[in-house]
Formats: sequence, structure tokens, C-alpha cells
Amino acid sequence: MMNQTILLKQRPVGKPTLSDFDFVNEESNVQPKEGEILLETTYISVDPYLRGRMSSAKSYVAPFEVGKPISSGIVAKVIASKNTDFKEGDYVSGLLAWKTKQISTGEGLNKIDPNKVPLSAYLGVVGMTGLTAYCGLTEIGKPKEGETLVVSGAAGAVGTIVGQIGKILGLRVIGIAGSDEKVDMLTSEFGYDEAINYKTTKNIKEAIEAAAPNGVDIYFDNVGGDISEAVLYNINHFARIIVCGAISVYNKTEPQKNETVQPFIVKNSALMQGFIVSNYASKFPEAIQQLATWIAEDKLKYTETIVDGFANTPQAFIDLLDGKNKGKMIVKA
Amino acid sequence: MMNQTILLKQRPVGKPTLSDFDFVNEESNVQPKEGEILLETTYISVDPYLRGRMSSAKSYVAPFEVGKPISSGIVAKVIASKNTDFKEGDYVSGLLAWKTKQISTGEGLNKIDPNKVPLSAYLGVVGMTGLTAYCGLTEIGKPKEGETLVVSGAAGAVGTIVGQIGKILGLRVIGIAGSDEKVDMLTSEFGYDEAINYKTTKNIKEAIEAAAPNGVDIYFDNVGGDISEAVLYNINHFARIIVCGAISVYNKTEPQKNETVQPFIVKNSALMQGFIVSNYASKFPEAIQQLATWIAEDKLKYTETIVDGFANTPQAFIDLLDGKNKGKMIVKA
Repeated sequence: MMNQTILLKQRPVGKPTLSDFDFVNEESNVQPKEGEILLETTYISVDPYLRGRMSSAKSYVAPFEVGKPISSGIVAKVIASKNTDFKEGDYVSGLLAWKTKQISTGEGLNKIDPNKVPLSAYLGVVGMTGLTAYCGLTEIGKPKEGETLVVSGAAGAVGTIVGQIGKILGLRVIGIAGSDEKVDMLTSEFGYDEAINYKTTKNIKEAIEAAAPNGVDIYFDNVGGDISEAVLYNINHFARIIVCGAISVYNKTEPQKNETVQPFIVKNSALMQGFIVSNYASKFPEAIQQLATWIAEDKLKYTETIVDGFANTPQAFIDLLDGKNKGKMIVKA
Repeated sequence: MMNQTILLKQRPVGKPTLSDFDFVNEESNVQPKEGEILLETTYISVDPYLRGRMSSAKSYVAPFEVGKPISSGIVAKVIASKNTDFKEGDYVSGLLAWKTKQISTGEGLNKIDPNKVPLSAYLGVVGMTGLTAYCGLTEIGKPKEGETLVVSGAAGAVGTIVGQIGKILGLRVIGIAGSDEKVDMLTSEFGYDEAINYKTTKNIKEAIEAAAPNGVDIYFDNVGGDISEAVLYNINHFARIIVCGAISVYNKTEPQKNETVQPFIVKNSALMQGFIVSNYASKFPEAIQQLATWIAEDKLKYTETIVDGFANTPQAFIDLLDGKNKGKMIVKA
């Protein structure tokens, strides 16, 4: 059988391009040994954090190695098994390599039910994306009914879920996104009270002030940089700033500067906390249960941008960094 | 009797100067009415946060009004009383006006014991300064034995106490200050393991890296700005950044810029929290007890710069912002 692998050819400088990736096609007849399973990739998740792993800088996960396969969240089908925990036809999700087929011991993989929610949802709303939204908002944000929540990168995979959870929990929810189409989607489809197009708004600081007449109690920050600076001017005493990502900064080759944050933080007794979802692993069972219930009750909608074809994974990743997705960006292998 | 008052004449632009203050001398024969006490000022605390109150910007306490007296922490003697809670000769501490004599209802004032620790200490090591150090470090920093603590503004009133508490709690403690004299004092008098003179050190980032070979777990930030930026490069996963002040930024007339913080915060799952000491008022009894015990056991030393003469209060405040103090800056009226 043919097996295709996507490697990191070189570390991107600034914005990644297709030339930073390499493709290897090889004939492979590898079969699982005792305790192993053979997987065929079904869906691949592309995520902003992967950009960080493509750099050599120290971070919360080790950098990808040049010349080695990239890995991310993947849904795969078991096509051969010599592991009693898995049988042919099972579906699993987990952190796997960008390969059309691969061998695994099954360690770190979760068996998933294709009848409960669609398979792709396990990479999104009931996978890492939904858990990121839920755990960040509830564990760090500690929302109280009636408070005001601002979400940046609001039309992204995490952002659309954060806003909806905010509404379910009784918050006033304001989204910031980068096109009129996205902004319309936030208010018409995802229940955001207000949404701001940062690309066409002259003074974001004042736009936030107008949208949040009682000030900002919680800020779910996916972008960092200038937008977050504008939000800081509007935070309330004891505000909580949930730092989930900094997509506006990831592609910069020079260190980006913004207004010094300490005066805002100290004069408001504000909290700013960064996280990755695995910090809250002990909360996952409860969170998955809650997210699934809200989906069943039709309270939680999700949007996916599904790109067809394994070979398009690098382009899908580049498009994601350019904000071309709506909701969770997934490649169908 | 003559009574002297110091008023805010105009809001300082940038660094305060003597011309921003006004003095009023008036003959006053005012006597306490029923329920009131007449106070004579003994010691006046000057603090960096007062600069913020001299601006009109929204903050955690209301701005001072132009043409009205400035107020700060003061130790005063009761020289006449028509309030049964206080008798002539008692000493009190609390937030009072910059006046040599004043009438009070006694509300918000604490009676203090001049025999337990020296009177000036009630404005410092067992007053707001010591409580700020203790509550910030323990409540936000949550120190664990063996961790590394960096303190900026380390030779200041709060900083010298933070470092000593850090050592008592078993931390490796690194101070950053602005003169060789201060740096020597930190290691020789206050038990700091290492101290860095930011004015003579070319690369602060590397100096911190060298002084903190295991990285920085807790950063007690009194200054903000460039020094804090250098610390951010050295924080560990799950670092806690206690934002107590931002003295490097207070006098700037233009917004100051530094490297965008979100990437540092998110990749380290770090926490940054601002506070004022009154947020932890419920912890004060325990904290005062602990601080007094450590002083009695000779584990906690404190330094004061005492300036003589009520009329020198504005200059003492200006000198404080210029870093001319060692330890707590106090005026003896």
C-alpha cells in the first residue's frame, strides 16, 4: 500500500509557506506486531499552536524536528489490530503523525463513538477545541451571571464555542474578528451580543467601550498584540484575562511591542493567566459531559471548515494562520 | 496654634516637582467636638502609588483633588479627645491628610503600641508595606521551598521585606536594584542570594539567567517596563508574576511600550496578577502576627530613610520616585 507522510522541511521564518514542508511517498507493507494497531487517518486537525512547535524556541511542548513528520490531533480508523483493546473498524482520536497510515501501540489514544456525534467533532467541539474553550472560561474566567465577556479571535474554533458558553452562563458577550462576514456570523449564528470587525474599525478601544458599557470583566484572548491592548483599556477591577493564544504575534520575526501591561494589571487588581488545555486534564470527563449535553440540547452549535485531501494539510494550516477558516479547521484525509 | 497643610496645586506632568505642591499656614483653634479627636502628625509615609492618585486617570483609589490636601499613611498622637475610644497621648495610624494637626472621628484609625515596635514601623514593616510584601508573596506567589524568586525594586520598602520573607520560606532570592550600594545592601544585609544592578548591567536578561540557573518561578514586580520584560524571558512553566507596582512607568507622559506579554504568558501557563494590599484585608491579623514574630526572632530586618520636617514631605516624595531612599521612606513631622 502507498503511505504518504508530511515532514517539516525547514523552520518557517515568519509566515509559513509550502516550501517549509516536504512530502514523502513510500510503498509500505508494514503490519502491526503484537500489541500494535495499524491506523488509517480520517481527519486531521490544524491548529495555531502548531506554528510555535515549528520554531526552535522553548515552549510547553517540544519543537518539531526538521526532517521529521509533523503531528497534531487526528481521528483515525483501526484497519488492523494485534492489540486486544482495539478491533478493526474502531475509530480513535489522539496526537498522531501527519501520515495516511501509521502503526501505534494505542497509548494515548481514545476510542471514539461515530454514532454519538460526527467523527470530525472529536477534533473540535468535544475534543481539544471545546475543552480549551470550556476549561479556560470556567477555570480561569470564573464567570458570574451578568458579567461582560470579550473574546478575540472570536470567529475561530475556540472563539465560537467560548461565546456560546458565555451566553449559556448568562454573560454579555462581545466578539472581535477580522471580516464583516465573521462578525455577522458571530451575532446571527453564535448568539454574540455584539461583534467588532477590527480590520474596519478605526478605534477599537472606543468600539469596545461602546459595546461594553459596564466594562470588561473577562477577556478570552486568542490573539495578543494590539487588540488585547485595546481591551486592557476597558477592563474592570478584578478582571480575568484568559490567555489562550497569541496568533497575532506568532508569525512576527521581530519581537512585537505593545503598551506595558503592568499599570493596567496593578490598578485593576486584574489577573492574567496563560494555559494549555492539558493543565485541566482532571476536569475533562465533566467538561466532555457538559459539552455533549449542550450539543444534545441544541444550545451549542459549531462550525467546521473541512478541507479535502491529505496533501492539502500544509495549505490548510497556512490558510488557518491567515484567518481563512470559519470555526474549526479540519482536513479530511 | 499654627497648622500647616500640603495641597496638590496642580496635577504633575511626568515627574512631579515642588511647584506641583502648595503650602497653607493658618492659625487654628479648632477643638474636637463630641465623638472627635484632635491629632498631631508624628510620621508620614510617602509611597510610589501616590503618584497615580495625583493623576486624573481612573485607578483603584480616587484621584486627589487639585487644591485639596494630599493624604497617605500617617502615625499621629491624640492631643485632645472627645471620643471614648481614644485618650490623650494615644498613638494611631491610618490614612490621614498631610496636615500637622487635624480633627478625626477615629474611623479607620488603628490604635498602635509605641512599646511593641518603634512608631515608624507601623508605616512600614508591620504596616501597609510589610502586609503588601507578605500578602502578595504568599497569596499570589504561593511559594514552595526550593523555588526561585526574583524581586524588582528590591531595595525599596516592599522589596527588602519580600526578599527576606522569601529566604525565610526557603527560596532562592534574586534582587534587582539601581545602584551598587543598594545591590550590596541586598546581599549583605537582607540575605538576598544574588543582586543585579540594572543601571550597570548590559544585558539584564542574561544576568537573570545566570543568577537563576533553574529559571524563575516567582517574580515580585514593583517596576514594570524593561526590567520585567527581561524577567519574562526567564520564567518557568507555571510561573507566578505578582504585580505590585509599575514605578518605571508612572512618570512617563507617553504610553511606554514593551514586548507583547501574551506569548510568554501562554507558552509558560504563567499567571500574572495585580493587587493592592486591601484585597487581602481578611489576612491582615494573621499577617501582622507573623511579621511581628519574625521581627522578634530577628529574622526580619527593615531599613528606613527618615526625612526630618513636615515641610520636606513633597521633596521626600520626589526623592522616592528618583530612588534616593533605602527601604521605607518616612517623614518625621
